[in-house]
Amino acid sequence: MIIMGVDPGLTRCGVGVIEAGVTRRLSFIHVDVVRSDPKLSQDLRLLAIYNGLVEKIERFAPDMVSIERVFAQENRNTVLGTAQAAGLAMLAAAQRGIPVALHTPTEAKLAITGNGKAEKIQVERMVARVLGLNTLPQPADAADALSVAICHALRPQGALQGGEREQHLTPAQRRWAEASQQATRRHGARRDM
Amino acid sequence: MIIMGVDPGLTRCGVGVIEAGVTRRLSFIHVDVVRSDPKLSQDLRLLAIYNGLVEKIERFAPDMVSIERVFAQENRNTVLGTAQAAGLAMLAAAQRGIPVALHTPTEAKLAITGNGKAEKIQVERMVARVLGLNTLPQPADAADALSVAICHALRPQGALQGGEREQHLTPAQRRWAEASQQATRRHGARRDM
Repeated sequence: MIIMGVDPGLTRCGVGVIEAGVTRRLSFIHVDVVRSDPKLSQDLRLLAIYNGLVEKIERFAPDMVSIERVFAQENRNTVLGTAQAAGLAMLAAAQRGIPVALHTPTEAKLAITGNGKAEKIQVERMVARVLGLNTLPQPADAADALSVAICHALRPQGALQGGEREQHLTPAQRRWAEASQQATRRHGARRDM
Repeated sequence: MIIMGVDPGLTRCGVGVIEAGVTRRLSFIHVDVVRSDPKLSQDLRLLAIYNGLVEKIERFAPDMVSIERVFAQENRNTVLGTAQAAGLAMLAAAQRGIPVALHTPTEAKLAITGNGKAEKIQVERMVARVLGLNTLPQPADAADALSVAICHALRPQGALQGGEREQHLTPAQRRWAEASQQATRRHGARRDM
């Protein structure tokens, strides 16, 4: 299963592609940043981001697009552009019938490091280890795109439905499931994105 | 010149189309609401709004798309979806090389009624009068889409550059220009959208 992770942004939009095998063994495929020129008008910037995302989707043909969830209370100077970039990623996937998942940064950190408040460098090191990379993923801020892809691959699949599979979870997976369920309860009715 | 106004929204996205003649005489062409089903997932809702906007743009071939500007401090339960719908309208226009303008609700009210804080019913009545309609535009909330199109048609064209045309403005146009310049100064550096 090919999973494309997207760390949305209007100036820099991270894209990370991994393959998840049946045994949950993960392989690195691609990481990059799609950019738009801040000097352009908003409509042309959105077009540049959309075209860049479409190029990646058509090149790597993911089975799933996993996008970092945007919250309205984030830095308000950039949150609307970030939300719009996330919307374009969802559109590009939906146009091709590719399912979309949204994961919070906390979910991603927890899935990868076992700590939802892990430092950025710790997440980067674990992304490299999980994917068998000899160096930290470059560019550095695209590691977030890989981590949201890994998060989707490692998610405890029965957890969100509270299924019986939870009893077989590792401690890290159990913490992830609990945080995910709390996030769903906390944010679910708010339709943040 | 055909102008399409868009009042962005994820559940209901207003679309209003007018023609502006060389003498600034305005004619009504079309008004409608593009909808998405709130029960669908976010990606499929965005796809529905995008497809609806593309259908309108291809049917009416506007020379300009005028979109109501979204601000981050608005109702945070819906602001991200509204921003994403605005982003899709910008994308659909940019993909076809159609220029985009963003106007605040205050600019639109001021351009149409001479009062940036006008009541909704007053704006609807003036939209009907300016377009020579015998009844108020229906559906009621799509009147905002017509008003943002009218706002673009009636904008004092030299004003934003502080040009010499300002001295020929009507009092209402002059107030519009002042409010518009203030909005640009106040919001310009914030990159709200």
